[in-house]
Amino acid sequence: MSAPDPTAYDKLADLSRELRYLKDAQAILGWDQEVNLAKKGVAYRAQQLAFLSGEAHQRFTREEVGDWLAEADQSAETLNPQQTANLAHWQREYQRATCLPLALVKKMAETQALAHEAWSQARAASDFSQFRQPLGELIELSKEQVGHWGYSDQPYNGLLDIYERGATVQQLDQVFDELKPDLIPLVEEACGRETYAPTELRGDYPIEKQTALNQEIAESIGFDFDAGRIDTAVHPFCTGLGPMDTRLTTRYDETDFRSSLYGVLHEAGHGMYEQGLDAEQHGLPTGDAVSLGVHESQSRLWENHVGRSLSFWEKWLPRAAHYFPQLSGLSAEQMYRACNQAEKTHIRVEADEVTYDLHIILRYEMEKAIFSGDLALDDIPAAWDEKFEQSFGLQVDTPANGCLQDIHWSMGGFGYFPTYSLGNLNASHLVAAARGSGSVAAAMDSGDYSPLLAWMREHIHQPGSLLAPEQLIETAAGSPVSSAAHLAHLSQRYLGN
Amino acid sequence: MSAPDPTAYDKLADLSRELRYLKDAQAILGWDQEVNLAKKGVAYRAQQLAFLSGEAHQRFTREEVGDWLAEADQSAETLNPQQTANLAHWQREYQRATCLPLALVKKMAETQALAHEAWSQARAASDFSQFRQPLGELIELSKEQVGHWGYSDQPYNGLLDIYERGATVQQLDQVFDELKPDLIPLVEEACGRETYAPTELRGDYPIEKQTALNQEIAESIGFDFDAGRIDTAVHPFCTGLGPMDTRLTTRYDETDFRSSLYGVLHEAGHGMYEQGLDAEQHGLPTGDAVSLGVHESQSRLWENHVGRSLSFWEKWLPRAAHYFPQLSGLSAEQMYRACNQAEKTHIRVEADEVTYDLHIILRYEMEKAIFSGDLALDDIPAAWDEKFEQSFGLQVDTPANGCLQDIHWSMGGFGYFPTYSLGNLNASHLVAAARGSGSVAAAMDSGDYSPLLAWMREHIHQPGSLLAPEQLIETAAGSPVSSAAHLAHLSQRYLGN
Repeated sequence: MSAPDPTAYDKLADLSRELRYLKDAQAILGWDQEVNLAKKGVAYRAQQLAFLSGEAHQRFTREEVGDWLAEADQSAETLNPQQTANLAHWQREYQRATCLPLALVKKMAETQALAHEAWSQARAASDFSQFRQPLGELIELSKEQVGHWGYSDQPYNGLLDIYERGATVQQLDQVFDELKPDLIPLVEEACGRETYAPTELRGDYPIEKQTALNQEIAESIGFDFDAGRIDTAVHPFCTGLGPMDTRLTTRYDETDFRSSLYGVLHEAGHGMYEQGLDAEQHGLPTGDAVSLGVHESQSRLWENHVGRSLSFWEKWLPRAAHYFPQLSGLSAEQMYRACNQAEKTHIRVEADEVTYDLHIILRYEMEKAIFSGDLALDDIPAAWDEKFEQSFGLQVDTPANGCLQDIHWSMGGFGYFPTYSLGNLNASHLVAAARGSGSVAAAMDSGDYSPLLAWMREHIHQPGSLLAPEQLIETAAGSPVSSAAHLAHLSQRYLGN
Repeated sequence: MSAPDPTAYDKLADLSRELRYLKDAQAILGWDQEVNLAKKGVAYRAQQLAFLSGEAHQRFTREEVGDWLAEADQSAETLNPQQTANLAHWQREYQRATCLPLALVKKMAETQALAHEAWSQARAASDFSQFRQPLGELIELSKEQVGHWGYSDQPYNGLLDIYERGATVQQLDQVFDELKPDLIPLVEEACGRETYAPTELRGDYPIEKQTALNQEIAESIGFDFDAGRIDTAVHPFCTGLGPMDTRLTTRYDETDFRSSLYGVLHEAGHGMYEQGLDAEQHGLPTGDAVSLGVHESQSRLWENHVGRSLSFWEKWLPRAAHYFPQLSGLSAEQMYRACNQAEKTHIRVEADEVTYDLHIILRYEMEKAIFSGDLALDDIPAAWDEKFEQSFGLQVDTPANGCLQDIHWSMGGFGYFPTYSLGNLNASHLVAAARGSGSVAAAMDSGDYSPLLAWMREHIHQPGSLLAPEQLIETAAGSPVSSAAHLAHLSQRYLGN
């Protein structure tokens, strides 16, 4: 007896896995570009990546794929829940991919490459005029793109949906309107408190000792070094190159070991999510991380809820002092306070937990205004500075510390920033739920994070993209996400109540 | 006026460049596997490489490619010499590729990736039984492959031709029959001479200082670090990932800096060949290295003719002593003698120049016997040990020092080893010719290797695969290669006459 003919669903699953081989090849080329590639190799690498993107796009947008989708849809009642979720995902992606004209796709890629270079130079020179034109083009191309996709209510919704399926202005307005009134006084109070002076920690921290401590901690919390590694890069990131191959990067400050440590904890959080996905489902949506807002919940969780907790330092300070004897005189309480200081500063990536979301709200409001047409290109720097002063009470001295600081817009990543705040809210909401389950809280408070990881594995990692992001969080936590848990966490940590 | 339709040749050239994007993606996946990949990532990497091999194979073997080849052939009189060489190359490759079943291509790639892992473990455990099964599979798959291609006289000829276009058992028997009668007495005499005892150089050589010295030397001889890098791997190798991206690896012995240094000089020789290819032609045969025998001539040239010369140590000993003060008391003459000691040992990659070709002859005879059916899989270790004792007068104590020492068979690289001896002969032949040209000899003898590199750039690197290997060497040197120059070189260096 011969094997039955593959069904339309089988063909789609095979295609999905094949496309993933190509995407994972792109991922290693991208990882290598950040970690290893010498400068003369960059131009060819860009061509090669463009070719592979085009290949993946062409394979996916073939007419027969549309036929398979229609056919699979007709026998949808034969599919199990995983298969149903995968089919819905492919339908959505196919619809989005096939309605973009090839010329627009190419123009977008080309403009992004140029804009990235222009942004680098504009930021170095702290001169918005050098970034103005490509930024304007990317905004127009993004509008064109969402015009092809279609959107409900306003174009910005179409962009938000790229990074967080189902996210809308209406929903995010609600999130931030709920968060802001309590966050602002909390920021004021936290920033006004006297804390352990961070300068006392500055000193000499040799890189190889930082590496050894980071590795010891990452391994202890559950990052599997038999299925991944940590390298050095200018901008810390995490990327999955395959179901058993997750790469983290960090950067080192030889005067403060916390820079690389918190980089590693953050990226290891992303990495453990990747390592916790169902390897059997790799290449299918159910084997993929569900959204940036959920991904960021995992990184924030390990960086902040674990890594900046008192129990973490009770456990790890002796090891840190083993590598860095200058820490021997400190108490865990002092280290805890030194790692949780609120301060209003200009740069998002250096912000503490309590001021962080103010940076995101500013960007969200800027993007809303840009895509509703209320904010013109030339007015972006002044609008940023005005908003910043309103929120932070600080003047922006120069555009490099203002609207030029982040890479995202140069990549056309409009709608990306809000996922950082969603990540913060999700992290606090999930940690609160996990702590209410079995021995998680008691274990965490004694420095044992394995029950916490097990909980995340079961409720967040293993389902992949089976559920929509909000649904996943609600199912995992038993209630929909709100800002309550996050505000309680910040208040407890920064105000001690 | 619109652009004219692309010709059949143009279509083939575009395809060739596209396939190169895929092959360069495979190259980085392979490089990464040796340098970075954690063990749980190996299985997926094997599947991914198999997929990409299959992709490249399918793209190249489409029927329309055959039509383009026929069409280009019909207007062959319109092509320039580069285009003619490219077309001939594609015709030959198409003929070979179209007669291989896709399943075999994929099976080969997958088995290679798994065999590599098995070999690593088998070598570490010095246990042939762990490598036996994948080795057997690779031998059978290779036989199947040459069966599809067809071959003249015997299957091994089909394998030899992969690495050195046109090489046959008949020709190689002739090469080795010419070399052996003079080499064997030379080995005996060289190994019998009293030399500077190498143990005097053993000491403490920190890896970071070895790295710094190697980098300084590699840069000085012409390896471009803006278009490449050096990493650490179990088995030193060089791989090109793009026209401006050449990766070298070496390994470190903390008791003897020469191990990593000569590894780097060897691989930098390969690397400078890659860096010297015409970047505009990347993706076309005329932008590719022509053969392994020519590639190896470049590595041997820098490792031995340059790196083990007296003038090299006159120039570099002071820098080496700067990094390793224990070398301060040595003279350049002593170092020269210490780096040119003939000794019969077990490991090919550590062999001196004079005994080296005996290692190759052994492997060549083993492979001939395996593919003629005279040597069974299970008899390989014993046959190796017996042949080794015959040639070297030494017993093989353990398989790691015998038939498990080399990586090549784990990659299915049967027919590869003879190119090392061809490389030795080519190197000596080319150096003799280059030294007869302009200021090359005088510059070399004063430690300036830039005229030598310029000569190789012009005569060997820039032509790519325009000519067949033997033709390239003959055109460059003004006479066909023979063993004369190599024997003269060995005799001068090891016997001083």
